[in-house]
Amino acid sequence: MIAWPPVELMTDEYQLAMADSYLAQGKADGRVAFELFVRALPQDRGFLVAAGLERVCDYLTSFRFGTEAIDYLRRSHTVSDPLLRHLASLRFDGDVDAVPEGTVVHAGEPLLRVEGGRLACQLAETFLLNQVNFQTMIATKAARIVAAAGGRPVVDFGFRRAHGADAGLLAARAAYIGGCSATATVAAGFLWGIPTSGTMAHSYVLSFPSDVEAFSAFMRDHPDRSTLLIDTRDAISGARAACRASQLTGIVPQAVRLDSGDLVETAGAVRAILDGGGCAETQIVCSGDLDEYRIAKLLAAGAPIDGFGVGTALTTSNDAPALGGVYKLVESDGRPVMKAAGAKSNLPGRHQVFRTVAGDVIGLVGEDVTGSPLLEPVIRAGALVTPASSLGEIRDRAAAQIAALPERVRALRDPDTMPPQHSPRLAALEEELS
Amino acid sequence: MIAWPPVELMTDEYQLAMADSYLAQGKADGRVAFELFVRALPQDRGFLVAAGLERVCDYLTSFRFGTEAIDYLRRSHTVSDPLLRHLASLRFDGDVDAVPEGTVVHAGEPLLRVEGGRLACQLAETFLLNQVNFQTMIATKAARIVAAAGGRPVVDFGFRRAHGADAGLLAARAAYIGGCSATATVAAGFLWGIPTSGTMAHSYVLSFPSDVEAFSAFMRDHPDRSTLLIDTRDAISGARAACRASQLTGIVPQAVRLDSGDLVETAGAVRAILDGGGCAETQIVCSGDLDEYRIAKLLAAGAPIDGFGVGTALTTSNDAPALGGVYKLVESDGRPVMKAAGAKSNLPGRHQVFRTVAGDVIGLVGEDVTGSPLLEPVIRAGALVTPASSLGEIRDRAAAQIAALPERVRALRDPDTMPPQHSPRLAALEEELS
Repeated sequence: MIAWPPVELMTDEYQLAMADSYLAQGKADGRVAFELFVRALPQDRGFLVAAGLERVCDYLTSFRFGTEAIDYLRRSHTVSDPLLRHLASLRFDGDVDAVPEGTVVHAGEPLLRVEGGRLACQLAETFLLNQVNFQTMIATKAARIVAAAGGRPVVDFGFRRAHGADAGLLAARAAYIGGCSATATVAAGFLWGIPTSGTMAHSYVLSFPSDVEAFSAFMRDHPDRSTLLIDTRDAISGARAACRASQLTGIVPQAVRLDSGDLVETAGAVRAILDGGGCAETQIVCSGDLDEYRIAKLLAAGAPIDGFGVGTALTTSNDAPALGGVYKLVESDGRPVMKAAGAKSNLPGRHQVFRTVAGDVIGLVGEDVTGSPLLEPVIRAGALVTPASSLGEIRDRAAAQIAALPERVRALRDPDTMPPQHSPRLAALEEELS
Repeated sequence: MIAWPPVELMTDEYQLAMADSYLAQGKADGRVAFELFVRALPQDRGFLVAAGLERVCDYLTSFRFGTEAIDYLRRSHTVSDPLLRHLASLRFDGDVDAVPEGTVVHAGEPLLRVEGGRLACQLAETFLLNQVNFQTMIATKAARIVAAAGGRPVVDFGFRRAHGADAGLLAARAAYIGGCSATATVAAGFLWGIPTSGTMAHSYVLSFPSDVEAFSAFMRDHPDRSTLLIDTRDAISGARAACRASQLTGIVPQAVRLDSGDLVETAGAVRAILDGGGCAETQIVCSGDLDEYRIAKLLAAGAPIDGFGVGTALTTSNDAPALGGVYKLVESDGRPVMKAAGAKSNLPGRHQVFRTVAGDVIGLVGEDVTGSPLLEPVIRAGALVTPASSLGEIRDRAAAQIAALPERVRALRDPDTMPPQHSPRLAALEEELS
């Protein structure tokens, strides 16, 4: 079977090296605050859709170094004996404030703040960034693809091109948050109840002597959910075969799928064949290396397409395949801190984001700023205090917040961005520390 | 804790929809052969380094639908009752032939062939592609970065930007196969014994009143492996602080790390400070959004850099973030099959790749072709028959095969490719079926 390592070892070795030194220096019990934010939006992104908090909470509320992990660290001499003893009882007993999943966020705004003992907060960095960066990136990409599809359903087809198993799963969830209607990945149904859907592959069609026989068999076996892949041999003859199979079985296929070729021309020709062959109710869905740009182009050209399956572009965010979220120390033992290395600087202190009709303002925690605060208490003293939103609520939140954005911020190419302002007290603190 | 779903549910729903129909059509017991290959190399790739076979073997030799999965499929009405009963006892009892991990492969060459019962071979597609696509892509990217570094060690820093947990882990392994010397990811040491290494973060430095105090503490706590991150406040003053801390502690730091700024200029200035400050033995390692192109440029400009930490570019293969490997039916019940949809076609029949000094030849299994066969028997009747190579052997194989490639094929930009020839019997079969 596939062996998953203890999640507590999914950390960078430097986190342990630093922990060792903090312990030796008597700093292990210090209290710190880290914030996770994205300094600059990737190309062609006017906003981000926050995602990943569920895993962050799972990770932090169950944070512990188990026997397997401790044994490995001992025999690999990665850490000192005093740190081994310390890790064995280390828990995350701190607080987390975060924007709910599905919230639209802008460059520089904290998606979450983690406060607590220095060691646990530091060791968590690697996993938290891994999870929030990826899920936020995919929820954002999905929102773009869904927008391009203009109300037509988009289904996630991406597992096979995702970066490993976890990416395939999390992409299905993030895609749903970003507005996709379903996923092909069965395990995403198992984990999160996301609607799953499936059609057929070219290999199915090739396992029968002819398209008509393949389609007839599939419709008889799946009378209520038959999407026929018609381009295995040739889409035009495939469309005719779909009509013929429909006549033979008395079942009108729910949809046909095109996976190759010039989709504008082919979809038009297929539509005519279906309409003339008793399959006017049959929808046309398209797949095959689609992304938001190609979908927008297909629809602008008037292609009669009713839905899309998107794989690679969605699941890898291929035009911007990494989100540069960072997790920065903003307070150490009650003292606001700021790294002052030019472009890689951070805002000092603990922050709240206030949303107003005129845009967002980043202020300090406790500061009186007009607007709705975006970060909410999620974990207190190591325990969940706010029940997580349901996936449906998260998806609705994303849809509502995206719809409220100015059109130019939602543009697929060269969108406007909405950089947040800094509150008076934050500006004064930056001035003081720089 | 993080919940991993049953791996057998990491499949596309259409695999189950097809399985249902195959069962109803009496085709479930048919024997098929699928091959996994990459139709076209991504941009700027002259070759690929195969990786992922270990997980493929783990998956296929333990292939079964457990109770959790069956219960989910039942309650979600994803499949019929007859298929549920069939799945409960379904195993992979077939054969796998594959190129060993670390083998250099070219466009169109099968990396693996899976033969056996139709259902298991079909259901495996999604997971096999997910694993082999990603690991091959990263091993290839790593080989490029390592080549650019010209013998200087490259360490994988990528977990935080990887697409989820599995990607972070597998990227560390694939990077090692491609020639990286170590990874920052502790769990990759746990799983595979890959060397791990770590330095310090900006947050460590910011937890002390000054660079000198931070560096002194770290060197005292890690006298044998102290890499000091010197650009938290400013790299020049950081380099001076490293020398001062070295004088105070009597320990010469192993290395200093630069993570920002103009690395050519900064590395030169830092080298001079270290040399003049009693730290002539201290190496300079660089990180911060590096890739093979930037590394080649830094070294061409004469920057005195001794090693590199590479994160995002390595772990996401950012210039080519998806590898389009496909898994195609090549034989059904003993009959060679070919999908004839233009560019998305495949070679009919079961293949072997023969390597010669003049390039590779794809022939049919059993055909007498000059050259060394690349695909080896790995699984027979569901059981491993060839012990997996050790990770060191895999890494050595990759290094030797890459070194044997013509220089133009190894070029970072617009490399030559080495498309395989087709044997006489294969060419005749293609002619016959097209």
